[in-house]
Amino acid sequence: MPRIHFQQQLAELKDKLLAMAALAQQAVESAVDAFLLRDKGLCKYVKQNETAINTAQRELDEMAYELLAKEQPMAVDLRFILSVIKINGDLERIGDQATAIARRTKEILALDPMELPVDFTAMGEFAARMIRTAVQALLDGDARLADSVREMDDEIDRMNRRAHADLLRLIESQPQHTQQAMNGILVAKNLERIADHATNIATDVIFWIRGADVRHQLSMSMD
Amino acid sequence: MPRIHFQQQLAELKDKLLAMAALAQQAVESAVDAFLLRDKGLCKYVKQNETAINTAQRELDEMAYELLAKEQPMAVDLRFILSVIKINGDLERIGDQATAIARRTKEILALDPMELPVDFTAMGEFAARMIRTAVQALLDGDARLADSVREMDDEIDRMNRRAHADLLRLIESQPQHTQQAMNGILVAKNLERIADHATNIATDVIFWIRGADVRHQLSMSMD
Repeated sequence: MPRIHFQQQLAELKDKLLAMAALAQQAVESAVDAFLLRDKGLCKYVKQNETAINTAQRELDEMAYELLAKEQPMAVDLRFILSVIKINGDLERIGDQATAIARRTKEILALDPMELPVDFTAMGEFAARMIRTAVQALLDGDARLADSVREMDDEIDRMNRRAHADLLRLIESQPQHTQQAMNGILVAKNLERIADHATNIATDVIFWIRGADVRHQLSMSMD
Repeated sequence: MPRIHFQQQLAELKDKLLAMAALAQQAVESAVDAFLLRDKGLCKYVKQNETAINTAQRELDEMAYELLAKEQPMAVDLRFILSVIKINGDLERIGDQATAIARRTKEILALDPMELPVDFTAMGEFAARMIRTAVQALLDGDARLADSVREMDDEIDRMNRRAHADLLRLIESQPQHTQQAMNGILVAKNLERIADHATNIATDVIFWIRGADVRHQLSMSMD
């Protein structure tokens, strides 16, 4: 019964992707906590987590390649496996961004602690929710849920623009705090990029479900 | 003669990827020129170029999917086509980064012109050279050439760190120029990200040639 075996392998692929997504979400939340709490231990945790993400990505990619090579799946299964490969890449890059936040946190440990006028916790939670929602859309095959992630991206873009403008004003009025404010600007930007990766995932889900490439059609209609 | 036909299709896929890479390189160079010359027309050109890149990406992706679905290629050809899909994604994101530079350029048109202490031309040319080299490595099947792109990435990281530090000092000493310096910091960061995408391309080339995933092995050995 080779087809049943193939379905089992597809299910295993989904499980591995879920585990990968969980690691990525955890990386984002831990990185934001590390930044806000100036916690060296959490920075180390994020770094170790990145190694785990890299290993998981490699295993998942290899499994997808083997499936493609040995089973030669058609149509919807082929698109699903290709989507998994792409989503896997975005999850790994989310891990990279979380690590960048942890690296930046280590840099600010030498500076005086300072309250910045940005709600990083809200931004981090929002970004993590986008990842979760995009992966849920994949598991449920729910294109509408995936579409909602694309709408959430507008909101985090707004949060990032506000953070950027507020911190720029802070620098202009208090240049002695330039470095701290600059770190804040870059962390907000990291979170916005994490949200972009979640949006890429959602787009790949829509591509898989609708069997058509909506990427640029949608982005054109939104212009 | 289905195999000969398949080889023709692979050759066509390579040609399309080359055209896509040319568009991406042009986008980077035009965006840097637009930024330095404060040229509105060039900004518009970069934006139009992005539309062309998006269309090219969609066509290339669809062609790769069709090849996978109809020809069910094995081993080295399978890995090559999967690499093309990934490289295609990185080239499209390079176009996005170029557009981000053009968007930032439009923002600074309202500000006073100002000479920044950063050689953006050198950074832009360096990033474009990395793209060119990575794509050449793919065409020649040359893993060593691809490795050299990874080394070039260290150099552009250094350029970006220097730009960041110099512009930060400028802000601290001349807070009235915060916005201009900030734009410079972000453009340098965009160029560094473009270089990252070129490095991703080089990594995919190595993956294809060596038939093994070197991504994290190499990055671990460099730690």
